[in-house]
Amino acid sequence: MLMDGPSRRPALSSLLLAMAMPFFCSALSIDEAWSQLLMREKMMQLGGQLVLTKQEELANKKLMALKKAEVSQAMRTQKFPPSMHFFQAKTLIEQSEVFHILKKMPKGAALHIHDFGILSMNWLVKNVTYRPHCHFCVTPRGSWKFKFAYPTPPTPTPAECSEWVLLEKYRSKLPNVTDFDNRLLQAFTLMTEKPEVTYANQDAVWSKFKSIFFTISGLVQYAPVFRDYVFHALEEFYQDNVLYLELRAMLFPVYELNGTIHNEEWSVETYREVAHMFAKKHPGFIGIKIIYSVHRFENVSSVMKSVQTAMKLRTLFPEMVAGFDLVGREDTGHSLYDYREALMIPTLHGVKLPYFFHAGETDWQGTSVDRNLLVALILNSTRIGHGFALTKHPAVWADSWKKDIPIEVCPISNQVLKLVSDLRNHPAAVLMATGYPMVISSDDPAVFGAKGLSYDFYEAFMGIGGMSADLRTLKQLAMNSIKFSTLLDINKKAAMKTWEERWNKFVADLARRPT
Amino acid sequence: MLMDGPSRRPALSSLLLAMAMPFFCSALSIDEAWSQLLMREKMMQLGGQLVLTKQEELANKKLMALKKAEVSQAMRTQKFPPSMHFFQAKTLIEQSEVFHILKKMPKGAALHIHDFGILSMNWLVKNVTYRPHCHFCVTPRGSWKFKFAYPTPPTPTPAECSEWVLLEKYRSKLPNVTDFDNRLLQAFTLMTEKPEVTYANQDAVWSKFKSIFFTISGLVQYAPVFRDYVFHALEEFYQDNVLYLELRAMLFPVYELNGTIHNEEWSVETYREVAHMFAKKHPGFIGIKIIYSVHRFENVSSVMKSVQTAMKLRTLFPEMVAGFDLVGREDTGHSLYDYREALMIPTLHGVKLPYFFHAGETDWQGTSVDRNLLVALILNSTRIGHGFALTKHPAVWADSWKKDIPIEVCPISNQVLKLVSDLRNHPAAVLMATGYPMVISSDDPAVFGAKGLSYDFYEAFMGIGGMSADLRTLKQLAMNSIKFSTLLDINKKAAMKTWEERWNKFVADLARRPT
Repeated sequence: MLMDGPSRRPALSSLLLAMAMPFFCSALSIDEAWSQLLMREKMMQLGGQLVLTKQEELANKKLMALKKAEVSQAMRTQKFPPSMHFFQAKTLIEQSEVFHILKKMPKGAALHIHDFGILSMNWLVKNVTYRPHCHFCVTPRGSWKFKFAYPTPPTPTPAECSEWVLLEKYRSKLPNVTDFDNRLLQAFTLMTEKPEVTYANQDAVWSKFKSIFFTISGLVQYAPVFRDYVFHALEEFYQDNVLYLELRAMLFPVYELNGTIHNEEWSVETYREVAHMFAKKHPGFIGIKIIYSVHRFENVSSVMKSVQTAMKLRTLFPEMVAGFDLVGREDTGHSLYDYREALMIPTLHGVKLPYFFHAGETDWQGTSVDRNLLVALILNSTRIGHGFALTKHPAVWADSWKKDIPIEVCPISNQVLKLVSDLRNHPAAVLMATGYPMVISSDDPAVFGAKGLSYDFYEAFMGIGGMSADLRTLKQLAMNSIKFSTLLDINKKAAMKTWEERWNKFVADLARRPT
Repeated sequence: MLMDGPSRRPALSSLLLAMAMPFFCSALSIDEAWSQLLMREKMMQLGGQLVLTKQEELANKKLMALKKAEVSQAMRTQKFPPSMHFFQAKTLIEQSEVFHILKKMPKGAALHIHDFGILSMNWLVKNVTYRPHCHFCVTPRGSWKFKFAYPTPPTPTPAECSEWVLLEKYRSKLPNVTDFDNRLLQAFTLMTEKPEVTYANQDAVWSKFKSIFFTISGLVQYAPVFRDYVFHALEEFYQDNVLYLELRAMLFPVYELNGTIHNEEWSVETYREVAHMFAKKHPGFIGIKIIYSVHRFENVSSVMKSVQTAMKLRTLFPEMVAGFDLVGREDTGHSLYDYREALMIPTLHGVKLPYFFHAGETDWQGTSVDRNLLVALILNSTRIGHGFALTKHPAVWADSWKKDIPIEVCPISNQVLKLVSDLRNHPAAVLMATGYPMVISSDDPAVFGAKGLSYDFYEAFMGIGGMSADLRTLKQLAMNSIKFSTLLDINKKAAMKTWEERWNKFVADLARRPT
């Protein structure tokens, strides 16, 4: 028979049906039926079941009035920041009252950020490149390369780079240093006035993205800079009301002026020391952890070694190293399935190595890359990085929900790297509406011209959540960031307490705000 | 307590969980677990439960090999038509082997198309405007206006239009008629080389969209043209292997050369006659029905009258008039809720007037407009036009699934009218992956430079469905178009039989295709 009756309706259908509350009978008026539907949807959405205090209710009213005014204005002017490219929306966002409230909001933790994309690049230009002994050369492909050394290092081969030039000396001869510094800044970020022209496709934007990390590596991997970078990055997130960070870190060799090179252990130890020092000076700061990460262009045997390194580092620094991940562009890199042998090593040795896989950072549904989500689920990933394609995988979606595996949503990253243009179409909108566990993070804010988490919270709150998202949504997102962190239970409780104190103060301020 | 444990997880969560099959135990290998997940997702997706014949399996292999080659090439070249604006993708689509197969595929019915957006505009330029007694004038806002009349009609006031010019005479004096005809064609479609520049926002594209219908109204509402328009439109869909159409028709007054004006009944009767005549000459053609539609800018009392007109027309032409809808831009028009009093009239009178509401054709989640989906559900809409926002409304999603209410997905329309740019991010991707009932349609193909349904099927099959969509998906979509039509059961069976014969021939040809 050609026509499929109700009995042939797929499984998900009948189960989604089951979730319907006692169905309104036709005797209900439109208004009653409407209220029931609205209430059901309100209860389903992320944070929808939170019961607000009186003060929170008041704060919510103030916040939602501002939000409504901004959305209404956007509907009139047809200029809505989450629908625009972030590079063009940034100044508009900075004029938003809602954004200023989000900056003040205690956001909990940043759970998806990468080692060297988290501190404003201006600091590299204005501070780091002005330090003594900074050399640069230019590669045949036109990329800058930096190196701190004394004396000047030996000349590279022409295939590698031009001659090393001492930056201090070079700058002293420039007619216009500001111009030069601006060019450096441009080389360190993806920012451009016409992103749709500069980056015609994903290849173009990923090419520049990779070149940025290549270019800044000689700066940030210099031991004194490395320490300062970590400290100042923590400062930038702390200023943005983020108290705890879990960093995907590749632990590349850090070098000294004399050429000495440090190993991964040194890097982890330095992260630990800097975070400890930072915490002493910054009340309420909770700390950092490292998710050791390697590139998904490595071959299987290399990843096998990395998994072993991760296991070793976790044994040496059980409170610092949270687990393992693979990073880089999913569409062109190896799939997790390719690495299955390497990724099974811990299980085979009876060792627990938590995974935090990037998965589903793709638009190519049904391809091998798109199936990373399946492997991430099968290997019990603690969280999923991005999970952009999750809603296209209803079985993974259902099972990862059952396992309470959150996704780490990075709206600006997804937009700048050309997965989605209008953030109202970000698939997390569906997940937010259904209450799927998630956290908001910023991936590489410094590369995108953002800072901390507030810009991404703005996009999530205004764009992804739409007018349905309110203070409950924000509260749930902040709490999720602590709940789904890898802090030990006792530390999680303490972190939640610290966050709650700050949240209450934030809410009181917001509630007191003149209308 | 701040942290929400499993017991506080929202309702949808626990129910989505219930749908998980017996969960693979950790003893399963990665490959087994992977296969199970893939199989579950395959069964869930639209058409996933269809069992193909041997010949269909063979045809599917041929089709999927071509699809895979095209997608692989797109991944290399970074030029993937569904990710590009249709105006820029069109020539690429026309070079696609998959597209040529889709053109040949019996697609069943077109269930979401509008009266005067369905026949290539070139016909209006090259045929209609060359007919005798065709006059034009230009409005103060720069729009063309046409009128067939003999003798030349009285001069309009300057506030209305310029003087009437006889087109035949005007053309005879032109140095370059081709240029002029091209300008006409440009005025009749949205096509432009740089759509992102021409249409900076939704206001801009909707403004031109509306002006097109204003401009062509004087041509298509001329009685002889009206008859020919309907006939040729049916021809164009028939050529595209579409055998049945349900037209949203506004039934505007049709006029004769002498100024006589016809009412709605005349229009419906003419639709009936032309379709009847067409069916005689075109084997397998099933027919058309009308969904009487009025504009959502009308006030409530005007819509009250229209609902009564719809009831009357349905009584007069029970086999021709399927029901009622409101059309026009949802974001700026009245909400369905505003019209609730009018829309309850049939129920109050105990009359059945099926609704086919446009609803959720918006990106503005949580606004009053966005709630049209709720009212469409509450008023038992037979189908939902677009339903673009459905996945952001999980309660409506669940209930409309229970009621088996399909959405009418119009990919190219949604892209051109700037709801989504990359069609891989179209929310129907989630609905297709979960098997939600839907049909594919083309809205106003002629205005977008498309034709029939094939271009939209291409976007849905390649972009929305991704590599997961195969011949099962296509078969289900075609069958859905008949299943969810308003044909009487007996006619539905006959239509399904006709379609099935053609489908089998199509499959046989595809299976025989050299590799």
